[in-house]
This record gives sequence, C-alpha cells and structure tokens, in this order.
Amino acid sequence: MRHFTHLKDLTPEEIQSILRQARIWKTVPPDHIFLNKILAMVFFNPSLRTRLSFEAAMLRHGGHAIALEVGSGSWNLEIESGAIMNSNKPEHVREAVPVISRLADIVGVRSFSLGLSHEEDDRDSVIHAFKSLSSVPVISMESAREHPCQGLADMLTIQEHFEELRPKVTLAWAPHIKSLPKAVPHSFLLSASAMGYDITVAHPPGYELATSVIKEAQNLSQRSGSRIRFSHNLDSAIQDTQVIYAKAWGPSSPLAAPLDTLTSWMTHERHLKLADPKSIFIHCLPVRRNVEVHDSILDSRQCKVIDEAENRFHIQRALIHFLLSHS
Amino acid sequence: MRHFTHLKDLTPEEIQSILRQARIWKTVPPDHIFLNKILAMVFFNPSLRTRLSFEAAMLRHGGHAIALEVGSGSWNLEIESGAIMNSNKPEHVREAVPVISRLADIVGVRSFSLGLSHEEDDRDSVIHAFKSLSSVPVISMESAREHPCQGLADMLTIQEHFEELRPKVTLAWAPHIKSLPKAVPHSFLLSASAMGYDITVAHPPGYELATSVIKEAQNLSQRSGSRIRFSHNLDSAIQDTQVIYAKAWGPSSPLAAPLDTLTSWMTHERHLKLADPKSIFIHCLPVRRNVEVHDSILDSRQCKVIDEAENRFHIQRALIHFLLSHS
Amino acid sequence: MRHFTHLKDLTPEEIQSILRQARIWKTVPPDHIFLNKILAMVFFNPSLRTRLSFEAAMLRHGGHAIALEVGSGSWNLEIESGAIMNSNKPEHVREAVPVISRLADIVGVRSFSLGLSHEEDDRDSVIHAFKSLSSVPVISMESAREHPCQGLADMLTIQEHFEELRPKVTLAWAPHIKSLPKAVPHSFLLSASAMGYDITVAHPPGYELATSVIKEAQNLSQRSGSRIRFSHNLDSAIQDTQVIYAKAWGPSSPLAAPLDTLTSWMTHERHLKLADPKSIFIHCLPVRRNVEVHDSILDSRQCKVIDEAENRFHIQRALIHFLLSHS
Repeated sequence: MRHFTHLKDLTPEEIQSILRQARIWKTVPPDHIFLNKILAMVFFNPSLRTRLSFEAAMLRHGGHAIALEVGSGSWNLEIESGAIMNSNKPEHVREAVPVISRLADIVGVRSFSLGLSHEEDDRDSVIHAFKSLSSVPVISMESAREHPCQGLADMLTIQEHFEELRPKVTLAWAPHIKSLPKAVPHSFLLSASAMGYDITVAHPPGYELATSVIKEAQNLSQRSGSRIRFSHNLDSAIQDTQVIYAKAWGPSSPLAAPLDTLTSWMTHERHLKLADPKSIFIHCLPVRRNVEVHDSILDSRQCKVIDEAENRFHIQRALIHFLLSHS
Repeated sequence: MRHFTHLKDLTPEEIQSILRQARIWKTVPPDHIFLNKILAMVFFNPSLRTRLSFEAAMLRHGGHAIALEVGSGSWNLEIESGAIMNSNKPEHVREAVPVISRLADIVGVRSFSLGLSHEEDDRDSVIHAFKSLSSVPVISMESAREHPCQGLADMLTIQEHFEELRPKVTLAWAPHIKSLPKAVPHSFLLSASAMGYDITVAHPPGYELATSVIKEAQNLSQRSGSRIRFSHNLDSAIQDTQVIYAKAWGPSSPLAAPLDTLTSWMTHERHLKLADPKSIFIHCLPVRRNVEVHDSILDSRQCKVIDEAENRFHIQRALIHFLLSHS
Repeated sequence: MRHFTHLKDLTPEEIQSILRQARIWKTVPPDHIFLNKILAMVFFNPSLRTRLSFEAAMLRHGGHAIALEVGSGSWNLEIESGAIMNSNKPEHVREAVPVISRLADIVGVRSFSLGLSHEEDDRDSVIHAFKSLSSVPVISMESAREHPCQGLADMLTIQEHFEELRPKVTLAWAPHIKSLPKAVPHSFLLSASAMGYDITVAHPPGYELATSVIKEAQNLSQRSGSRIRFSHNLDSAIQDTQVIYAKAWGPSSPLAAPLDTLTSWMTHERHLKLADPKSIFIHCLPVRRNVEVHDSILDSRQCKVIDEAENRFHIQRALIHFLLSHS
C-alpha cells in the first residue's frame, strides 16, 4: 500500500510518471476510473479550493467524496500513546483512523501547523498517525510540513510552459498581514529540486525555511542536477528568471524584521521586466492583491495562477489513481 | 453562454418554455440529463431548502452538487477592483470565480443583502461579479435584489391551479420579528408581471418595494397585459383574489410604523373568506406560524406551500437544463 | 410505510432477518440496490461516524446522501402545535418535514436529549414529529431515548463471535468527564433483550437507566427467554461474562455519587481476566482511553470496537433496504 503525504513518498521516476499521466488525462480524460470508490476527506482546517478539486476529481470519474469537517477544536483527536483522555480531545486516532479507513477506499487529511514549534511542524504528527493506522492509502491535503499536491501542481504548470527544459525558477517571499505556515514554499522547493530546476529562494533575513526541508532539497538536487541558491535581494533573485513564484510565510527567528516593515517585497510589474521575457508568474492562491502581489502582475498575460489552480485537479486525479492502483 | 440571476435574463417566451418543461418533467421525469455534471453551490448565507432542492435536482439525474459554505465572514471575497487587500477579505473574486468555474459545469450563488443601502442591494455586486468572471453559467440561489428561482416556482404553483387563466393575485405584506430582505417579494412581483396576472401589492405605508423593481415590473406588465396596483388596505386587496401570497419584509423608510405594531397584517382564515372560494394560499417558507400567518390558513386545504416548495426542485431542474443546453 | 426510530418498530423476526441480511451482504455485497435513491440526513447534533457510515451505505450502492447540518440552535424547529412563533425557532416541523420528504426517499434524523427531563427524553418529541409528518420512511441516527442502529450493530458484532449461542453479556457503566445521554445503553439493553441474551447491567447507585426502557426490555425478555439482572458491583457482573460492553452515562438521581469519584469503574485488563477467556470487548466509540477504558483492553486482541463501528455500515445498509422495500 502506498501513501502520499510528503514528496519523498514518491521516487523521482514516479513523480515524472504522475506528471505525464496528469498531462495526458488533461487532454483526453479517462473514463470511470474511480467507479464506486469513496474518498473520505478529513479537514482539521477549512478549505474551499482543495475540497472542490479533490471532490471534483472523484465525482468526474464515477467516485464519491465525503467531507468530514472536524473544524478547529470541535472534534480534537488525541494522538499521544498512553494519554489519559480527560481533556477536550474525545477520541484517539487509534480508533478514529481505523474506522474511517474501513469505510473509505482512500483518506485525505488536512492538518495545518499548530504554530507550536519548528520541530513539531517537522514531525507532522497528525498525518503520520493517520499513515500508521490507516488500512487504505492516505493523501495529504496540506499538513504542517508540506503541501505536496500543490507542489506537483506547480511542477505541472511549469512543465506545460517549458516542456523538457529545466527553467530558472525563483521562489520570492511576499508580504502579508499574517504569519503564514511554510508548507507551500517547502513543497515548491522540494518539488523543484526533484525536477532538476535552477532554483533561487529569496526572502528577508530571519525568514528561513525549515532546515530539514533545505537539507532534503539539497539531497534531491544532487541526484537531479538541480541548483539551489538563497538570496536576501529580491531584484537580483528575479533577474533573468523564467518562473516567479510569490508566496508569503512567517518569520523563523524572533530577530526578523516585522511583517509590516517589508512592503518592498511585494512583487510588481517591474519585477516581471527584470525576468526573462517569456517568464510566467505563479502563486498557490488565495492571494492578497496589492499586498503580496500587485494587480499589474496578476492581471498580466504572464500570470498563470488560474491554470495552476486547475492543475490541482489534474495532479490529484493522477495521484489518487496511482495510490489506488498500488493498494 | 446564459446565466439566470435575475428575471430579465430570460425572455417571456423562455420563461413560458421553462415552466412548460418543468410541468412535463414533473409527470414524466427525464433520464440522466445531468450525467457527470457538477453544480458548485457557493453559499455566502446558510440554506436548507435551497440546498436540498438544487442538490436533489442534480443527483436525481446523474449529476453532482458540491456545497461550498463560505459562511458569514469565514471566507469573505473582495469584489472591488484595485483594492489593497489588507482587510479580512483574503481572496478576490477575480481569482475565486475563475477557479471555481474551471472545476464545475454550473455555479450557484447565494448572497443576501448586506443591509447597507437600497442602491447597494439593487447593484447586487457579488452576483454580478460572479457572472462577469465565470466561464460557466451562473444561477442565483437568492441575492440581495431577487430570488428568481423562487419566483418561477411560485408561477408554476399558480399555473397548476389556474392553467391558462390569468388569475388575480395578491402579495400581502406580513408581520415578522425581524426586518427581512425583499428578494422574494421582488421576484414574485416581477414574475407575476411577466405572466400577465392582475396583481395587487398590499403593505403598510413605509414598506415600499424597491423603486427600480417596481419600474421593471411596470415595463413587463405593459408587454404582458398585466395590471399592478398598490394598496395600504389588506382586506380590500384580498377581496375576490385567487392567489394570496403572504410575505414579510422590512421597512423602506425610517418613518414606517415599527414591525411590532403591525400585528393586524397577519393573514387569517377570515381573509380566505374574503377571497375567491377557489383561491389558493402560498408562501416561500419558512413561515412563522401565528406571527406571519395564522394556523387556520396554513392547515387549510387551500394552502399549497408544500407543493410550492417541491416546485423549487421542478423549476430548478428545468432551469439548469436550459442553462447547460445554451452553453 | 415503515420507520425505524425505536427498536419496537421491528418485530423480533424482522430483527433477525435484518441481521441475517447484513451478514450475507458483508460477505457478498449487493449491487446498486439504492440506485438514484436519496437519503436526507438531518443533523440537529454533529456527527462523523454516523454520517460516514450512512453516507457510505448509500454511495456504495448507486444512491446519494445529503447532509443537512442544522447545528445547535442555527435552525431550531418548532414542534408545538398552535405555537405563536415569535421565538428563535423560525420554522415549524409541519412545514419542514413534508418539504424534506417530498425531495428525499428516506430521511435520517439525529436529535439528542436536550437534558430537560427524563419524561421529555422518553417522549422523543422531535423524532416522533418527523415520523408523523413524513411521507417517506424515517430512520433514527440517535435520539434522546434510543440509538437503535447502534444497538443492532452491537448485536451483529456479538452474533459474528457467538453465532446461534445466547451469550452472557455485561453492560458495564464507565466513568467520563461529562454526563452523557443514555440512548446507547438503552438500545443495547433493548436489543440484547430481544435477542434472548443473559444480560447483567452494572452501574453505581443513582445511575439507573430509564424506567420505561427497563420495562420494555423486561417485556421483550419474556418473549425471547432473555434474563436481565442489575448490579452495583462491576467485578461480579463481569465474572464469566462473554461480552463486556463498557459505556458512560449520566446520573439519574441528584443523590448519585459525582462522576469524578467513580474512577474505579474504569474497565481494565484485570476485568477481562474475570470474564470468559473467549469473551469480547465492545464500545460504541468514541472512547476516552484511560478514563472509560484502559489501554490494556482497547489494545488487546479481544477488543472488537473497530469491527463494531464497521458493522454500523452493514446494519444500516440492510435497514435502509428493508425500509425502502416496505414503502
């Protein structure tokens, strides 16, 4: 049985094969490949885009999706072994997960960072508990450490524009009014490293990505021939790049400059002009216009964010098929 | 591509044709007319009856419905162009709507009045933003200005009783404990005007319907031969009428008598006696018994509110089919 | 037309026949027995396990389920006849239920005890209102008095282990941090009485089950040959038993010892040793580990709680088929 909760659950060859399948089915959709199959989607955090794209993938092909919105706190799951369960967590994953996996063919889990510590985010305890206890495949719909379906949808979007080339890509930190989790930039870095791209990550000092993720990306880059650089200068990081990926995330250090002093990091039309003339702009959405990214980019013909969101559907269809076929 | 968010989206001939289709399929249901089609229902406001009737229409015929309950405030959408998005609205309709319409075949939107102003209600900004940005048909599940599916379901209910006749209908303002929006009475007035009925709208002074809606109804009535009168006297408005439609709505003027002083406007069995002996009573539901309408009407054999609610299903099935066929 | 909201809605022969059907279909699943059928699930109280098992039963066999989450207070239904509806209950069951039953083929209702009084729980007004007003079968997804689908799933679990034997079963009261409703223990007692089992109910003084339920169980036991005993001693109640069913519920008397003084009632591995060596342990879930039941039981091979939860699906599939076949 196979799961897909972190990029390393797939070999580089499997990643390529899933991207290939996603592109083929985008042109010629398959028939009822999920006939009578049920995806149980367990949401610890709310979702619209993710839910719609996963549910549509099942429904379009004869399958079904059941959304269990456990909400923030309404149905907390205990994950510690041996816990005396007298707190506000009425059910243990040791019961919840086996029951769900008896009734579904595949289980999706969304469980964001609790903001406790980098170590806790890196451990990703909730999603690992699901993996260890489920009798059917588990697929991540974003966890504390990674958002691997988003990462692969990003790669599909890049491949559609640059085919077999290995473009120069820039992950550009963006301002925001909140300190957001790092799962999305982590997955972009990991996926682009596996693809062999030439990657520059630009962010202000004190906004470093997780050390363990950088190390994993560097290992992937050695095998793929990828190159990873880090920069504190947005303009030079974008110079001649072919893909600009803007994304906000929170500080890694208490010494980092506060979010509201970093407005110069908002990507703007003038950044597009520094990049390769054939460059594309992507972002996982939702995007705060004129805070993270200026209208002049989002409304340009180089902006591919809608295609990128649609590609979530295509990647997830190929992934679910892969997981069900290997069970 | 066709949308249905306001009555004027359909010609009078198209309205008649949809009513005809709804009646035919009520007797002989069609087969899998929505095979593999997905309706994405975006709820800015909660719903039970509307959700159930739309979802059932898709499911009964091979299709699917995905409910996205964006709730009040949980996922506010920015609609202003050029906005600096540093408020509590994390996503712009310019991204949200194109993404939803890439994954669904038709989009339903429910977005009530925000109670800001009559002008804002009349503009119906949210639903117009969906129409302008969607690549698939948009259908209203009630907006600030109109509830056009309810309006057509009301007409279907009247047609079932009076066939080709053009009955005398009375829209009777009703008391309530809250100041309700006017979308439902607006849609009744517009639909009945398009049908050529003889309409009396009765309400207390200061409870006028929107001027732009009245003007639109008068234009429709000139083409259909309909007649529209307004009255401040409930008894005389009901005299000899064949259809009583009771409905509560809020004041249009700060000088209007307060809601709790208008209890004499509750419709009662004695009003049925003023009406034509073959008259029917309808109401869009939910109805507050013994506040808006007395038990003696709701439990009478002239009361057709359950048929009327069921007709939501029949009208929406015909409408969705019409919209999908013209895309 | 048949409903299933309380155990007495079925004859003992029908109960046996449904258990038989559930076991056969567990081995050889039926085909599209619910083709195009719609189950409307009305949740006055939230649910995960119940929703998943009901929805899966419909989806696996060509049918559909629509979940209407009316939440706690968000859509209160008035049930009193003649009420003047000026409170926070905007809709009367006299409208809501007929409308739902026009659009669905079967209606599920979950409506917990409001904690007002034993008499009110016993009356089960909400679910009786649904039964009297629905034009399609009504199935309980747990009400104030009973959780009859859970009761039958418990019997199926016992039958799988003891076949035609009539085992000695013990319902063992368990500690909890909250005063829980009695619907689950009531349904276990009633179902086991109908099956002819040898039943011991063990609980602290002041934690009696409802008198009317005990009386109904005694009537059933006279026909089935069942034997019912009550005990205040957990150890002796478990001695040589073949089925231990642990379950927390609240006090019936203000003189009962407070919940937090009764920790010695937590079932533990040492209780398993008092029981028959081939005994099984069951619990309806969710279970608070090391509060209601010790890890040493829940992680033992005698613990069948996951099978029991899966059996909810099998029982409900057989029940829905039974109800639809008799409509």
